[in-house]
Amino acid sequence: MKLAMIGLGKMGANMVRRLVNHGHEVTAYDVEHDVATALADELKNVTATSTLKATLEDLPVPRVVWLMVPHQFVDASIDDLIVAGLARGDVVVDGGNSNFKLSQQRAVNLAEQGIQFVDSGTSGGVWGLNNGYSIMVGGTKEAVALVQPALEALAPAPDLGWGHVGPAGAGHYVKMVHNGIEYALMEAYAEGFELMDTRQEMDLDLHQISRIWQHGSVVRSWLLDLIADALESDASLRSLSDYVDDSGEGRWTIVDSIENAVPVPVLALALQMRFRSRQSPSYACKVLNAMRAGFGGHAIRPAGDGEES
Amino acid sequence: MKLAMIGLGKMGANMVRRLVNHGHEVTAYDVEHDVATALADELKNVTATSTLKATLEDLPVPRVVWLMVPHQFVDASIDDLIVAGLARGDVVVDGGNSNFKLSQQRAVNLAEQGIQFVDSGTSGGVWGLNNGYSIMVGGTKEAVALVQPALEALAPAPDLGWGHVGPAGAGHYVKMVHNGIEYALMEAYAEGFELMDTRQEMDLDLHQISRIWQHGSVVRSWLLDLIADALESDASLRSLSDYVDDSGEGRWTIVDSIENAVPVPVLALALQMRFRSRQSPSYACKVLNAMRAGFGGHAIRPAGDGEES
Repeated sequence: MKLAMIGLGKMGANMVRRLVNHGHEVTAYDVEHDVATALADELKNVTATSTLKATLEDLPVPRVVWLMVPHQFVDASIDDLIVAGLARGDVVVDGGNSNFKLSQQRAVNLAEQGIQFVDSGTSGGVWGLNNGYSIMVGGTKEAVALVQPALEALAPAPDLGWGHVGPAGAGHYVKMVHNGIEYALMEAYAEGFELMDTRQEMDLDLHQISRIWQHGSVVRSWLLDLIADALESDASLRSLSDYVDDSGEGRWTIVDSIENAVPVPVLALALQMRFRSRQSPSYACKVLNAMRAGFGGHAIRPAGDGEES
Repeated sequence: MKLAMIGLGKMGANMVRRLVNHGHEVTAYDVEHDVATALADELKNVTATSTLKATLEDLPVPRVVWLMVPHQFVDASIDDLIVAGLARGDVVVDGGNSNFKLSQQRAVNLAEQGIQFVDSGTSGGVWGLNNGYSIMVGGTKEAVALVQPALEALAPAPDLGWGHVGPAGAGHYVKMVHNGIEYALMEAYAEGFELMDTRQEMDLDLHQISRIWQHGSVVRSWLLDLIADALESDASLRSLSDYVDDSGEGRWTIVDSIENAVPVPVLALALQMRFRSRQSPSYACKVLNAMRAGFGGHAIRPAGDGEES
């Protein structure tokens, strides 16, 4: 099939590469036109366009336009596409990490103009280019059917790693929960390795242990593979900060659990631990020390002692 | 090599099968002699013995005796082996889930008699027979070298999935942390699936979602494979209780974190959630309701309302 990819960052560009490797044609657009032309120079069957109007004119009808833009630019991109000529019967795919409630609303808004909306939660990161992406798709049967050849190319195999999970919004909902789980899985490994790292008298080789666990153990996983690779190149992890960011989906997962009163204590705590990682110093810990000082009889560290420099 | 396996439960018997499949000879002993004779009838190169004395007499010197007995029987088994003739230079392997501190102490005690001790933390469950076990080994170089041919057979490959991680006790220590991590990984998936299960208006197919995630996603893992298989045969999990047991290593992990003041909040909470799963009713929740009733103005459910029958 022929489709447009809007947004040629790390994810979007790699998805274009995988699509054309599987025999599809892509009309490639990015706000930075140089990025699009570089990709068209690199790959056969990629056409770089410099306007959204030209992008739409390059596509067969009904058009399939795949957005891989930061979630805060999705509405503007859709508005611009409508101005540029997106019309009844066309399909917009949001392949980023949008909040599922916005995806539900966008589907309703676009349907009023006869435009179809598909939300496609995509996991796999930079490894997806070679391994294929895991893709969770929401939308109507008709809209998903129009996109299906691309989904089959992007997934690890035509019948593996992707699925139409429900109505519009369901794809991003499932991807959101996926990421909520991911945070807690990551934290679980991290805490276990921390514990082993402190047991200095055993002089454990954490890289060796991660390699042992990759084969035959109950905790083997792709995340463990990443840990093993990281410990191979830098066993002390000296090159890394201990400040841990988040990109939103973990928060939405916990908000969803609160709105629906569903207990997800470990997922919530994993997120909180990321927030904690960003504090140096921690005001709460100073409050604790204020109270311990108030009790009397406890030796309290002065400011600067024990804080990260 | 020829070694003895003491304890022919699910794990011990499967390990005997894997050892003889890889060309080793096993002298098999169990307190229930019928179990040993059945295994000897099933397999070539297995000799069933009816006493520990006969077991030891059947082995070349130095003897390698592998214990796969419940952890509360390890000391008694070692004592009985010494009475039966275990001698200077012989090696005892504890392949079960003993507390690493006991393993450290057993190594010291046995060393006083010139007997070597190896602790071998084993992961893989019933799948280990075909896939191989992940094995974390503690002990002296000399002792581990005597056991190495068996380790290479039990692991997924001679050079994969097993390793000598440190002195006596280190094998069980690493296996303990492995299981502490495992509890939190399991709880993370469980909470995510719970959240999706409550989103009834999307009518999500949780079996389908688990299958999607198995390919290309960041959360793919062996535990996820188990979930996918379970949801295939019983999507509602109606056949399962929600009372979750634990077998000790998760608790030891948290005790270790407390003794060494290492923060492992998510591992600790995952364990606590297992304890919570066993409460019906929860006395703490009744205490909460007592206070809410005391505030006045809150409608409080009477006993029996909302409790599991």
